[in-house]
Amino acid sequence: MENGKPGAATTRICVARPDGVEVRGRDLCRDLMGRLSFTEYFYLLVTGNEPTDDQRYFLDLLLVAIAEHGMTPTVQAARMTLAADPDSLQAALAAGILGCGSVLLGTSEACGRLLGQVQTRVANGEGAEAAALDVVRDYRNSGRKVPGFGHPLHRPVDPRTVRILELASARGIGGPHVGLARDIDDAVAEVWGKRLVMNVSMPIAAVLMDLDFPAAMIKAIPLLARTGGILAHLAEEQQNPLGFALAASAEAAVSYRGQDEGD
Amino acid sequence: MENGKPGAATTRICVARPDGVEVRGRDLCRDLMGRLSFTEYFYLLVTGNEPTDDQRYFLDLLLVAIAEHGMTPTVQAARMTLAADPDSLQAALAAGILGCGSVLLGTSEACGRLLGQVQTRVANGEGAEAAALDVVRDYRNSGRKVPGFGHPLHRPVDPRTVRILELASARGIGGPHVGLARDIDDAVAEVWGKRLVMNVSMPIAAVLMDLDFPAAMIKAIPLLARTGGILAHLAEEQQNPLGFALAASAEAAVSYRGQDEGD
Amino acid sequence: MENGKPGAATTRICVARPDGVEVRGRDLCRDLMGRLSFTEYFYLLVTGNEPTDDQRYFLDLLLVAIAEHGMTPTVQAARMTLAADPDSLQAALAAGILGCGSVLLGTSEACGRLLGQVQTRVANGEGAEAAALDVVRDYRNSGRKVPGFGHPLHRPVDPRTVRILELASARGIGGPHVGLARDIDDAVAEVWGKRLVMNVSMPIAAVLMDLDFPAAMIKAIPLLARTGGILAHLAEEQQNPLGFALAASAEAAVSYRGQDEGD
Amino acid sequence: MENGKPGAATTRICVARPDGVEVRGRDLCRDLMGRLSFTEYFYLLVTGNEPTDDQRYFLDLLLVAIAEHGMTPTVQAARMTLAADPDSLQAALAAGILGCGSVLLGTSEACGRLLGQVQTRVANGEGAEAAALDVVRDYRNSGRKVPGFGHPLHRPVDPRTVRILELASARGIGGPHVGLARDIDDAVAEVWGKRLVMNVSMPIAAVLMDLDFPAAMIKAIPLLARTGGILAHLAEEQQNPLGFALAASAEAAVSYRGQDEGD
Repeated sequence: MENGKPGAATTRICVARPDGVEVRGRDLCRDLMGRLSFTEYFYLLVTGNEPTDDQRYFLDLLLVAIAEHGMTPTVQAARMTLAADPDSLQAALAAGILGCGSVLLGTSEACGRLLGQVQTRVANGEGAEAAALDVVRDYRNSGRKVPGFGHPLHRPVDPRTVRILELASARGIGGPHVGLARDIDDAVAEVWGKRLVMNVSMPIAAVLMDLDFPAAMIKAIPLLARTGGILAHLAEEQQNPLGFALAASAEAAVSYRGQDEGD
Repeated sequence: MENGKPGAATTRICVARPDGVEVRGRDLCRDLMGRLSFTEYFYLLVTGNEPTDDQRYFLDLLLVAIAEHGMTPTVQAARMTLAADPDSLQAALAAGILGCGSVLLGTSEACGRLLGQVQTRVANGEGAEAAALDVVRDYRNSGRKVPGFGHPLHRPVDPRTVRILELASARGIGGPHVGLARDIDDAVAEVWGKRLVMNVSMPIAAVLMDLDFPAAMIKAIPLLARTGGILAHLAEEQQNPLGFALAASAEAAVSYRGQDEGD
Repeated sequence: MENGKPGAATTRICVARPDGVEVRGRDLCRDLMGRLSFTEYFYLLVTGNEPTDDQRYFLDLLLVAIAEHGMTPTVQAARMTLAADPDSLQAALAAGILGCGSVLLGTSEACGRLLGQVQTRVANGEGAEAAALDVVRDYRNSGRKVPGFGHPLHRPVDPRTVRILELASARGIGGPHVGLARDIDDAVAEVWGKRLVMNVSMPIAAVLMDLDFPAAMIKAIPLLARTGGILAHLAEEQQNPLGFALAASAEAAVSYRGQDEGD
Repeated sequence: MENGKPGAATTRICVARPDGVEVRGRDLCRDLMGRLSFTEYFYLLVTGNEPTDDQRYFLDLLLVAIAEHGMTPTVQAARMTLAADPDSLQAALAAGILGCGSVLLGTSEACGRLLGQVQTRVANGEGAEAAALDVVRDYRNSGRKVPGFGHPLHRPVDPRTVRILELASARGIGGPHVGLARDIDDAVAEVWGKRLVMNVSMPIAAVLMDLDFPAAMIKAIPLLARTGGILAHLAEEQQNPLGFALAASAEAAVSYRGQDEGD
């Protein structure tokens, strides 16, 4: 085994046997089917543990918050792919998922790193507001965008952000990271001289961190959620095909310019 | 618009506006977030309606039943892809989804068509057992496999099949299609002279049809479910990389044979 | 090995060893690099043999003919995917390839089957024109489209079809299948009462069959060709991003219609 | 248009019209088909210019050098995907392409950046050997791997590297970047105290830079090349299915370890 250590090849997720399927040490058929919701099962699959009530509630909340956002470029890519190859639902789904890249997932992750950075300074005795201000000023001075701020459509606020924070308060989940998200929001407003839109990526990261979700789930949650949204669009595409019409509208807005035309 | 009718380009799924997101005629932030589980939201996204209790229960049940089945070829493809390109979780997920093809999805769909075929004859006055026997005999005589029977691992029964049918009985969901699935099982045993393994695809199709799920969901449910399972493997792969070891073990089992070697 | 026969796992394509790479029985570094063009190497990789001059000429011709056709839906899907995830060129390429489905590849293959069907009747002593007419009439009478006819843009002819047939004549490749393609063209005109556009898929299939290409290449050639075209668009997208503009134009042409609006 | 500037949406690659297809200012059917090889056409598509003889020669050489390397993880992912979904050649191809990530493409690109870094110092008057030594020492001191060195299989040299450099010399392409690649090779040997394997990524980058290829092609060339190799494996897989056998061998080498087993 060129790149693997002998004996190291173990998995803890699942084994299928002739008479049953064992998942994370549990019997799939006897213990899990009919008892766990899909959300709870997803948490168990990824982490090895069943979620607490709060973890289950916010995992559902976040999945619902980001599963769908209209006729986005990735949804269009998926619908055009299904129009071009109607025989493969999974190919169209894959095409849609492939666009769920750094913009969406990277942002939640980057927010998580930013929150961790401020949190470390607080743990070392600095005040939260001062730490947030200092870190945000660093971003500004080095010409970098603060992750989790700005949105091409939503203003003056991202309504999903507002709602997640509202429900976090209502459920008493206002832990340290949610608090830091608010501090960072204020710091950005002070440093930029105006309030910027805190987009949905920041409260996603903050809530997940306050609820002790593993880092891997910060990436996996938007992917599972968007899979649900893309599948809904593909089910609609099968009944009401838009893919070619979308492509024709887009094509009409592009002009070709040959080599010799005033180059 | 070459392939689209002007005015026909409408979607009913979602629109994002500066101050909110509307999904299926509902306000995402005020009405759906925090109220619906992801499973309920997925049903709403695909169908436009919220599920009944039974629909929600069995949608969760079926998603849990088929999300994960161990180190399958598609899981291996996903893990090898992440090993080869660790920078893109979505690419590895897409690689795994691409193998969720005719074997898995086609089978549930084909089971649905078979159930519909028998059901039509029953609606025309034929007895269910006789109709099932006649249809199954046709398959045998024309040398075709009956969809939903046989499994490379599970025997003498597919434990997921047993459990789904058990829970359908317990919840009183034994509608006409679940009944027909049992009749087809008996017919197959009679025609083949021995009981074959009725795999999980048949009860999936039967339960969905008895609960009035739209046909589009027969395909979409396994895809969403497997996305959850693949993401769990990819989270594990990030912590405990197996992809290259899997590939090395597989490669060691293949020999190269040049043109000139006794061809 | 559940689905494989022990000892049957052999490949004839390639083996990499510490001191060299052997491809199809040849030494990659000493014998192939610097001698073969990529087109010749592709033929060798797929078939195990180096192409004749005519095979090489027409493989190049067909690859050039179908590599690129403007801002098609699959190119748009690829460009939108790169816009959404600029970090992964291979993900955007994959999204574009996924749409190269039944429309494009299925058509060449279906043309191949149609040509084979007519050829079989000719081999059994029927005249070519009569056989073509009979087979085409069957399609018409059973309400099926004859594969290889019709194009959404090109009319009154597909200029690529004209050029391929012209070059086939010029090089003396007018073998039986190219002849049958012309007979089928005439038969379609007679049965439909007007000449339909014979699109590029028919001469692709006919030329490949006259040059003894293996069936697998009928599918593989358009995929390799389009990969070249998509990569060119992605290189342009990196310099001159259109993906989000394409998506915005397309989105503007779609309207959302909620549940309650006169449904 | 949310993210696009009005009027900016132009492409220079291709436009399809009813009576013809124009590519990079040329008539596809009259001017390009039958005249250009696929390699020359690919260069034209990406760059807008036809290649010189040397550019064509080395583009063919590099495509041949890296198209195929045996039963790699990405080839296995592609073959398993085709085994799992035999209906979609393009899905299996996409699965294979998705693994062509940072290892392969990133390395050539990183080599290009390294060569550029050394070249800048030389342009500023430093000696080539001293500049190479200095830059390589920086990598070593900061604990980073020098891109383009090391290979899991090939030793003591990568035979493809040797052959590319040999042919570059033979054709008189030993421009500044090929020379710097040799200087870096020597510098690595000195700093590490032993000669490391200079893998194929370094001469690829050096040759491309000496021949004035645009940066976009450093990424695109391996992707097009590997597409050819993967398609060959998929053609073989259709005739001689290995995908499930590969997966079974790999699965047999992994053990499942439940939660309770000495965790």
